Amino acid sequence: MRTVFWDYDSDTMKMIDQRRLPFELDVPEYTTYEAVAAAIRDMVVRGAPAIGAAAGFGMALAARRSRAVDRLSLLRELEAAARHLEAARPTAVNLAWGVRRLLRVAADEELETVDEVRDALLAEAQRLADEDVALNRRMGFHGAELISDGDTILHHCNTGALATVDWGTALGVIFAAHEQGKRVHVLVDETRPRLQGARLTAWELQQRGISFDLIADNAAGHFMRAGEVDLVLVGSDRTAANGDVANKIGTYQLGVLAKENGVPFYPVVPTSTIDLELVSGDLIPIEERDADEVLIVDGRPIAPAGITARNPAFDVTPHRYVTGIVTEAGIVYPPFVKNLRAAVESERVPQSGAKS
Amino acid sequence: MRTVFWDYDSDTMKMIDQRRLPFELDVPEYTTYEAVAAAIRDMVVRGAPAIGAAAGFGMALAARRSRAVDRLSLLRELEAAARHLEAARPTAVNLAWGVRRLLRVAADEELETVDEVRDALLAEAQRLADEDVALNRRMGFHGAELISDGDTILHHCNTGALATVDWGTALGVIFAAHEQGKRVHVLVDETRPRLQGARLTAWELQQRGISFDLIADNAAGHFMRAGEVDLVLVGSDRTAANGDVANKIGTYQLGVLAKENGVPFYPVVPTSTIDLELVSGDLIPIEERDADEVLIVDGRPIAPAGITARNPAFDVTPHRYVTGIVTEAGIVYPPFVKNLRAAVESERVPQSGAKS
Repeated sequence: MRTVFWDYDSDTMKMIDQRRLPFELDVPEYTTYEAVAAAIRDMVVRGAPAIGAAAGFGMALAARRSRAVDRLSLLRELEAAARHLEAARPTAVNLAWGVRRLLRVAADEELETVDEVRDALLAEAQRLADEDVALNRRMGFHGAELISDGDTILHHCNTGALATVDWGTALGVIFAAHEQGKRVHVLVDETRPRLQGARLTAWELQQRGISFDLIADNAAGHFMRAGEVDLVLVGSDRTAANGDVANKIGTYQLGVLAKENGVPFYPVVPTSTIDLELVSGDLIPIEERDADEVLIVDGRPIAPAGITARNPAFDVTPHRYVTGIVTEAGIVYPPFVKNLRAAVESERVPQSGAKS
Repeated sequence: MRTVFWDYDSDTMKMIDQRRLPFELDVPEYTTYEAVAAAIRDMVVRGAPAIGAAAGFGMALAARRSRAVDRLSLLRELEAAARHLEAARPTAVNLAWGVRRLLRVAADEELETVDEVRDALLAEAQRLADEDVALNRRMGFHGAELISDGDTILHHCNTGALATVDWGTALGVIFAAHEQGKRVHVLVDETRPRLQGARLTAWELQQRGISFDLIADNAAGHFMRAGEVDLVLVGSDRTAANGDVANKIGTYQLGVLAKENGVPFYPVVPTSTIDLELVSGDLIPIEERDADEVLIVDGRPIAPAGITARNPAFDVTPHRYVTGIVTEAGIVYPPFVKNLRAAVESERVPQSGAKS
């Protein structure tokens, strides 16, 4: 099931409400772009690709529900909808990217009628979502080469369908190996403080019938040292030109422990998140989030009242701990400065005959 | 405040009920040895030294509440009380040790009357508790030499007054530095799955007015790499002759991360827990505890129903990650095989003039 999708029967958009997982699978229907914007703001949906797709379908909704009778009035309404959607999470780069991509299509002068614009927008939103899924599947099957039958894989945070439109990045590699018939077992880091592993990754693996055990993040090193881990797979929000990866807090520790124990460590990242202008991950400022994410679990305090906590959201894993980087263009090995550039450029320039 | 103590005003024993911390400071009174046994079984009290002290005071209670009129009847009652107390947690070595120490005093033939036995038992139970506190303070002030004014110390699990009779081991080193007037800041690992850092260490530091921040265990490596940690202090349940330490799950990760980042890493351990017969920590079997400790926080599930978890209670940190080991006999440095033996033997053999 996709995280964000258009339901052609009811002509509405639907999204899994991730705030209620894993205890309830609620897939509400969205009939207005304002409701989509509110859902993005309230974190019904998370993960850059899923937010981009939600924005695309939100624009399609704006066009479909509009009562404009001429093309120019519709374009003015779409401009207003775009601003409204973008304001839902101003820091989400994919949100603005999705909205602008839809606006460019709407402005295409070859579309003459209001209905033509409406249809073109829905088709483009669908294409945007489908492209992400296809890219993730490609990446997943590249990465699956790293997995042998019987392997145990350690995984951090959530990098599955729920972090994308469908399939996922690091978890997508595990899904691909499973689809190839390889028997795999996953040790799932619960991923404090927000518990995305316990809540979301565990749910996705359970849905797909893949063998796994949840573990406290503290146990990851012990299992590596005990020889129980064959491979560590993680996501990356942003990858520097030198192969440093910025990802969910705790990723750095896994990188160090993997290297220390001779366990291969692979981030799984779409080339769109590799920043060739960023020479080192150490230039990325580390956001510290609200202390309550550490102090409160499921609405209840876990620590004495009146204390403080520090809550870095991300950390940077230097490239010396990175065995290789799985992308949709293939697996990239050191030297990363040269080989990441080649991977990114191979995806930017359509190969001859690759696109019709 | 002591975790376990005799209240001479009411002539009863009292213990902090650690199950209710940090949300409530409840110090119930115990008037029978049966109630003490029930409290030990129900984990009102935890930590080997505190359990030993509770057993000692439990025996004193049995003598004080007994209606025996002659010495031999009293000894028979004390034998029964000893068996009852020992059965409360059969695996707790200090429990049997405390009970037997009190029984030996009761059997002293120089004590002629029932009242003399009663008084001797309370005096011995008090001595047992006081010895632990004195030993911890001595260890704490040895360790405090490692701390400079302004240092930030990373700490795992709970190793304070609540893990002992009073003062503590690793946390006791921090208390000693604080008492010396050094300004210290503590980064407190919350210590999943049982959250002893969030619940107990945070509470102890708050009570003493020592500066600290709670962190998710995932953030420890990030802060070390960022240069924000001057020293890592941990406890150890059992230390091998070669300096390998077995301690709360997550300790191994801290050892690796400390070494990788050039941060000194010191376990703080009473010599009584150094096992010179154990040549390597790798010979210690790792107990796996109930999966529900990972799956449930404060009575509520954090993960989907019907999944499994793995929950190793301890891990082993090989001695190559250990900078030094703080004991009540001083700080022990490599080569550990030679120097730990010397430290243990210096404590076993009373130095000339050290005891009256």
